[in-house]
Amino acid sequence: MSKVHHLASSLVIILCIGVISSTKYTPDWASLDTRPLPAWFDEGKIGIMLHVGVFSVPSFGSEWFWDEWKANVPSYVNFMKHNYPPEFTYPDFAPKFTFEFFNPDEWAKFLSDAGAKYVILTTKHHEGFTNWPSKFSFNWNSMDVGPKRDIVGELAAAVRKRGDVHFGVYHSLYEWFNPLYLEDKANHYKSQNFIKEKLMPEMYELVNNYKPEIFWSDGDWDAKDVYWNSTEFVAWLYNESPVKDTVIVNDRWGNNTRCIHGGYWNCKDRYNPRVLLKHKWENIMTMDKKAGAYRREATLRDYYTMEELIENLVSTVSCGGNLLINVGITHDGRVIPVFEERLMKMRKWLDVNGEAIYSTKPWTHQNDTLTPGVWYTSKETVNGTVVYAIVLDWPKINLLLLGAPDMANDTTVSMVGYPGELKWVPGTISGVVVEIPPIPYGKLPCQYAWVFKFTNLKKW
Amino acid sequence: MSKVHHLASSLVIILCIGVISSTKYTPDWASLDTRPLPAWFDEGKIGIMLHVGVFSVPSFGSEWFWDEWKANVPSYVNFMKHNYPPEFTYPDFAPKFTFEFFNPDEWAKFLSDAGAKYVILTTKHHEGFTNWPSKFSFNWNSMDVGPKRDIVGELAAAVRKRGDVHFGVYHSLYEWFNPLYLEDKANHYKSQNFIKEKLMPEMYELVNNYKPEIFWSDGDWDAKDVYWNSTEFVAWLYNESPVKDTVIVNDRWGNNTRCIHGGYWNCKDRYNPRVLLKHKWENIMTMDKKAGAYRREATLRDYYTMEELIENLVSTVSCGGNLLINVGITHDGRVIPVFEERLMKMRKWLDVNGEAIYSTKPWTHQNDTLTPGVWYTSKETVNGTVVYAIVLDWPKINLLLLGAPDMANDTTVSMVGYPGELKWVPGTISGVVVEIPPIPYGKLPCQYAWVFKFTNLKKW
Amino acid sequence: MSKVHHLASSLVIILCIGVISSTKYTPDWASLDTRPLPAWFDEGKIGIMLHVGVFSVPSFGSEWFWDEWKANVPSYVNFMKHNYPPEFTYPDFAPKFTFEFFNPDEWAKFLSDAGAKYVILTTKHHEGFTNWPSKFSFNWNSMDVGPKRDIVGELAAAVRKRGDVHFGVYHSLYEWFNPLYLEDKANHYKSQNFIKEKLMPEMYELVNNYKPEIFWSDGDWDAKDVYWNSTEFVAWLYNESPVKDTVIVNDRWGNNTRCIHGGYWNCKDRYNPRVLLKHKWENIMTMDKKAGAYRREATLRDYYTMEELIENLVSTVSCGGNLLINVGITHDGRVIPVFEERLMKMRKWLDVNGEAIYSTKPWTHQNDTLTPGVWYTSKETVNGTVVYAIVLDWPKINLLLLGAPDMANDTTVSMVGYPGELKWVPGTISGVVVEIPPIPYGKLPCQYAWVFKFTNLKKW
Amino acid sequence: MSKVHHLASSLVIILCIGVISSTKYTPDWASLDTRPLPAWFDEGKIGIMLHVGVFSVPSFGSEWFWDEWKANVPSYVNFMKHNYPPEFTYPDFAPKFTFEFFNPDEWAKFLSDAGAKYVILTTKHHEGFTNWPSKFSFNWNSMDVGPKRDIVGELAAAVRKRGDVHFGVYHSLYEWFNPLYLEDKANHYKSQNFIKEKLMPEMYELVNNYKPEIFWSDGDWDAKDVYWNSTEFVAWLYNESPVKDTVIVNDRWGNNTRCIHGGYWNCKDRYNPRVLLKHKWENIMTMDKKAGAYRREATLRDYYTMEELIENLVSTVSCGGNLLINVGITHDGRVIPVFEERLMKMRKWLDVNGEAIYSTKPWTHQNDTLTPGVWYTSKETVNGTVVYAIVLDWPKINLLLLGAPDMANDTTVSMVGYPGELKWVPGTISGVVVEIPPIPYGKLPCQYAWVFKFTNLKKW
Repeated sequence: MSKVHHLASSLVIILCIGVISSTKYTPDWASLDTRPLPAWFDEGKIGIMLHVGVFSVPSFGSEWFWDEWKANVPSYVNFMKHNYPPEFTYPDFAPKFTFEFFNPDEWAKFLSDAGAKYVILTTKHHEGFTNWPSKFSFNWNSMDVGPKRDIVGELAAAVRKRGDVHFGVYHSLYEWFNPLYLEDKANHYKSQNFIKEKLMPEMYELVNNYKPEIFWSDGDWDAKDVYWNSTEFVAWLYNESPVKDTVIVNDRWGNNTRCIHGGYWNCKDRYNPRVLLKHKWENIMTMDKKAGAYRREATLRDYYTMEELIENLVSTVSCGGNLLINVGITHDGRVIPVFEERLMKMRKWLDVNGEAIYSTKPWTHQNDTLTPGVWYTSKETVNGTVVYAIVLDWPKINLLLLGAPDMANDTTVSMVGYPGELKWVPGTISGVVVEIPPIPYGKLPCQYAWVFKFTNLKKW
Repeated sequence: MSKVHHLASSLVIILCIGVISSTKYTPDWASLDTRPLPAWFDEGKIGIMLHVGVFSVPSFGSEWFWDEWKANVPSYVNFMKHNYPPEFTYPDFAPKFTFEFFNPDEWAKFLSDAGAKYVILTTKHHEGFTNWPSKFSFNWNSMDVGPKRDIVGELAAAVRKRGDVHFGVYHSLYEWFNPLYLEDKANHYKSQNFIKEKLMPEMYELVNNYKPEIFWSDGDWDAKDVYWNSTEFVAWLYNESPVKDTVIVNDRWGNNTRCIHGGYWNCKDRYNPRVLLKHKWENIMTMDKKAGAYRREATLRDYYTMEELIENLVSTVSCGGNLLINVGITHDGRVIPVFEERLMKMRKWLDVNGEAIYSTKPWTHQNDTLTPGVWYTSKETVNGTVVYAIVLDWPKINLLLLGAPDMANDTTVSMVGYPGELKWVPGTISGVVVEIPPIPYGKLPCQYAWVFKFTNLKKW
Repeated sequence: MSKVHHLASSLVIILCIGVISSTKYTPDWASLDTRPLPAWFDEGKIGIMLHVGVFSVPSFGSEWFWDEWKANVPSYVNFMKHNYPPEFTYPDFAPKFTFEFFNPDEWAKFLSDAGAKYVILTTKHHEGFTNWPSKFSFNWNSMDVGPKRDIVGELAAAVRKRGDVHFGVYHSLYEWFNPLYLEDKANHYKSQNFIKEKLMPEMYELVNNYKPEIFWSDGDWDAKDVYWNSTEFVAWLYNESPVKDTVIVNDRWGNNTRCIHGGYWNCKDRYNPRVLLKHKWENIMTMDKKAGAYRREATLRDYYTMEELIENLVSTVSCGGNLLINVGITHDGRVIPVFEERLMKMRKWLDVNGEAIYSTKPWTHQNDTLTPGVWYTSKETVNGTVVYAIVLDWPKINLLLLGAPDMANDTTVSMVGYPGELKWVPGTISGVVVEIPPIPYGKLPCQYAWVFKFTNLKKW
Repeated sequence: MSKVHHLASSLVIILCIGVISSTKYTPDWASLDTRPLPAWFDEGKIGIMLHVGVFSVPSFGSEWFWDEWKANVPSYVNFMKHNYPPEFTYPDFAPKFTFEFFNPDEWAKFLSDAGAKYVILTTKHHEGFTNWPSKFSFNWNSMDVGPKRDIVGELAAAVRKRGDVHFGVYHSLYEWFNPLYLEDKANHYKSQNFIKEKLMPEMYELVNNYKPEIFWSDGDWDAKDVYWNSTEFVAWLYNESPVKDTVIVNDRWGNNTRCIHGGYWNCKDRYNPRVLLKHKWENIMTMDKKAGAYRREATLRDYYTMEELIENLVSTVSCGGNLLINVGITHDGRVIPVFEERLMKMRKWLDVNGEAIYSTKPWTHQNDTLTPGVWYTSKETVNGTVVYAIVLDWPKINLLLLGAPDMANDTTVSMVGYPGELKWVPGTISGVVVEIPPIPYGKLPCQYAWVFKFTNLKKW
């Protein structure tokens, strides 16, 4: 990062501070894209997304159940044929969405225990069912049928009571089968009845009632931002909404905005470019590789192993992204134990190695030039820059060869969670050879993704 | 708005007047009340109303089930407590509204066989559930959940295919628990969000799609016509709708319109004034004295007997009204046999005595001045006015004393359905004494409400 | 009937009276068939049978639903296909047998009000589901699943509390799908595991617990009495059971016993020979001509009219039978209003004409030799034999011609319910010509089946 | 009984002995207890028990749901109160036992993959519901209601098709609420109607139809073996049943037989004495520490960790027991992923260390005299006895001190899964000090319970 750039950044910050109470964003991306993200988001690194909806009832295939079934995908058609009467419809599932084990305080504790810094709840998926008692979704919401609970409100309250996890809302713009939407679609998006009569009132209601810190938009792909009224809505969010000073948005505001406009970028699902992006981004990783919703037919091989989960976390953070880990909720309101176990193990890993994740910045290198499976992060400290090399595979011999670190005389190397410094010698051409001591099993800080910490590396 | 635009508007209006070749109604009662009713309605005399909705599932208490329950009426609260889980809601009933026996062609035949000239179907009751796939009631309509049928559309088509019964729609303005409505209500009807976003679009849709010949409004009592946008809607119905030349409306358009404005008058439920009204009116009689909906707990003593049904018909028609006989439909789409039997017996009575009902006009007297239980109707024929005295109770002796008829020398008296003329002598002061011959049981034209027909009475 | 026969009868009666407290019946028909019926049964004439069971849930087709469906009768197969998931079984219906409106006291009143002198309840139909908490039908009885009520016990208690209706039990010997039965069947009834392990214990339990006055057996047709252990069971009933002095049985005890052995005879369903039988018999008439169970799809034309019902009653009683009128009960525990109305009208008819039914004996003639539709009954009174001619169709002229009555000089003729005597002259060859006076409508004692009463006819 | 008859009986017995060409067991424990167990059972060490039944539907509390609820345990009463109508009964759950994901071939693969050598399926738990179409449990079995599958038959076939896992059946003698049983109980077990009419026929059917290799009896505690007819049944199993040469039984045959009589001993649930037993025994360990059934409310802390699971395995096998690991099945027929993962990790451990488990014998010591958490097993090989010391906790220093091994000069020590021999010196007083080399993380054979193998120890 150059000096000039630094200066520019400072100016921008000064400008923003000065202007915040008076300048209004205009409803166009040129203006909206200038809005800075609050620092906590980049520092937090880890969020958890919760998928819950009427799709939790069939709990088969994915959260796209309704659409896939209606599109005659055989597995869905067969599932319905074998298990339900012929006239059964998707809305008929709603009363079976019982949610009797829903315990928002336990959920809040779970999110916090997992080490997540924010949660994104599906408040309304493409099915249109609102997980709050929306005035604009009479009898197609979680208070009127099924749970008889304000899921959004109860979780928001529980999370805020704890105070250590930020509350965000997933919200789908389009609704597969909402007749008002289908009419606009048939009109090639030249009419906006759905937007005016349903979408905008609902989105205002959602924000005004629950004051989310993240508004995670989705379901944008059918039409351009102009149909969705996106810039007007985001401008309202930034200028006038009750969360105008804090809210964060993503980039799914129209099929012409992804990876281009908005707050941070999600780009596509499970996006993990494994190269540094200039813009803040987020990797939406579903714990079940095939679905966001909890699928009853999923087996162990469909779930990421701990090694894969940590690899995702490390490669994402190294490249400037946040990891949003999705967990599907059961129709009766539970997180299944295997998800609980994965996340508690991640937390155990973070208890040792969290300093290489939280509040870090991408380093000059993302992965190592010599040894594969090594990802870097860095952190500015009072004692200068610290660089973390996160090594996914335990070295086959007792030497770790790294090409990226530019070693100085006073450079120190240690393993996070293991006392003392490690011996090293400079690499033949560049980099370093670190000697791995014979650590007894019981003294190992963790069982995957060991972190090597460098201080006093040469500056670039 | 510029002058030019004004000019254009004026031109359009002039053009319209020219094209329609008749007046346009303005959206005020002074104008709307001038609209004449089509002749068939007064001539038809008998309609059947069908109550069907989600209330058909609990089928307990009445069609007001939801409201009564939520108002903590003990019988409803107990019914729910004993038969459903504690969290069960009214919308949870919807998937149980199976309607598997619904056969619109059989219904159309039944209506016709009963002698009804029009049918009024509850297309949407106060619960808000639309019995057609309304675009404005996503997942709270009979196509999305429960029946999976367009009940309104299928019945309209079946009735029209037969061709002898007019198709009308019952429609509730208010919806007890629609949050948009409740918001307007909380605003003391100063806001009209419910009207704009839900009610008007839905009412236009209903009329445009199903082209009803009667628009039977209800659920108006909470607010004035101005809140409901009633005059604008009726003006649209009369001026521009696809049924502008044929549609009939009633008087339930606001708590300031009943028995005052609109097409014909319903006034209150089961209104039967038993005196002549100057304005065309209709008596809504529920076959079950306590409810419009089919109630499972109803027993025989809750239903009108044939004698009571005929008395209602006769007294209503005599006073210028139409009789709208309500029948509750079961959750599985059936008319129960006891209702079928009542109506088929009414038809049998009409097969004999229909000439004293259909196409008649009120006479100078409605009921007799001497003998109670006698109601008059009249009819203009090529041979002059015919007067019918409908005698509810068989005379205790073989003489029928009537005070109202002003007998002339050539006046003839006969019993409808029995051959020949009856002997008579003038009454002592006025009226007539008719001799009832000893008719053997097998020759009696009917078993209740015998009709005596007078020709050549003195004119008034 | 010859003098010799009379004498024999008297002897038998004397014998029985003398022996009753000491003689035991042996388990063979020769002995069992000698058991006299208590007088009340022949005097009572009218019983009501109630069909209630798991078949009340589909309430389609008939009480044979399960069997018809499994035999692939298309209407049943289609019903299941359209309304239930493919794997749905008949036992899955049981929890839907809710019976929430069951009110045994109201039922008892209804039976009494209808004029019935006994009730026969289906305690177990061919489906095997017991309407009492049988120890031998674990979880396939009305206490464990569905109603959670002891239907048999509650009705027995309510009927006995009133005291004017005798309590009887319908009970099916065979069970279509009971594997123990099917095994015996596969063994060509050479094994009797079903009899020993299920049937006998259950039948003893039923009798011991509920002390029925009538044990109405059914489901016997697959096998002979020897398989069913019938004579042993009936001998136990007559000799040792708690109802040994009072119990009555019918004749369905094996495919070799119908219309031959047992207490009174039912022969086949809806058996109405219309000729005098020497043995006491009973006509099982289902109010719905097609089924014993309440069928939801039944319409008015499937039900007997009042005229048909009275015709059945009169022709049956005239020929020495009792009429057992079957009524199907709904899955929620109700008698539908159309059945209630039929039976209340029958009662109204009986209130006038009951003397020609209750406690009568067959006369020398059953129907008239000249005029069709005339049935005779008779009664011994202190003033000699009274003969009733029940005339189904009102005479076309004001003369009633009867061939059977042998008129004496002092013979009187009257119409039951109408004051005074009627004029008559002897018939040309035999019989009588009765003059029907011009009865005004309001003085008619009833509207169908008028009863003419003869006293002092010549003796035969 | 006459002498002649006695003689005849004796002849029959003699005849039988002659025919079978080997001893017949007499129905007493003195005889039955002499029956040897087949070798495979002791060699196999690991079985998996599957809990499946109607209790899988509420899936709350435990497989004792019905009993606990009826005993008014508050958590169960509340669960029912909040989630079901007041009249809901346990049998009403049966149709919800859908089991749609049941795939017997996948289950068989899973059992085999887990390293189990036998499976014990709950064919009938205390609720009485049979997981096979029992002729003696009409409409209370898995074919008639709920799954509509012969669960026992399908799993037996699938397991046998694979061929590497033995098939066993869990079967409960008593049935909490079977009225026949309750009657015997009320008679203080002096009557045996339940035994004769239900239990014996069912148990014969189960064995004859499915030919289990293990008959795992349970539910015996209320009464003595004499009530249950246990010795007669076991004698039949051993002498005449189709599995007479192969079947194994446990010890739960009456409240006077546990830990005393039968085949192998289970004693009480989760019995793990941690000392050597003279008789072959089995430790029933439930993966969920609190229940055999799958409980939806269970969280991670209710499940054994891998370390605890392996500790159970090792301590059990060391003391001569087999480990029977219980897994609860969901109502829709699935093994939840967390159970799958535990068992697949156990298998991975066994892939390395299985030689210290399968086919081993208890050694002279079970656990070590110096170091806690060390369990021994042994095996005879062609090269003499091999002894395995299974070390649960990685030594805190790089020396392992063991008191039990009596070292000879040529004794070798190695770590299973790690190449080469380990250095050792004799212990100060006795035993041995083994040097643990600095094994790099990637070369560790496993992550818990490391096995040290000794050859050529001094013989005892």
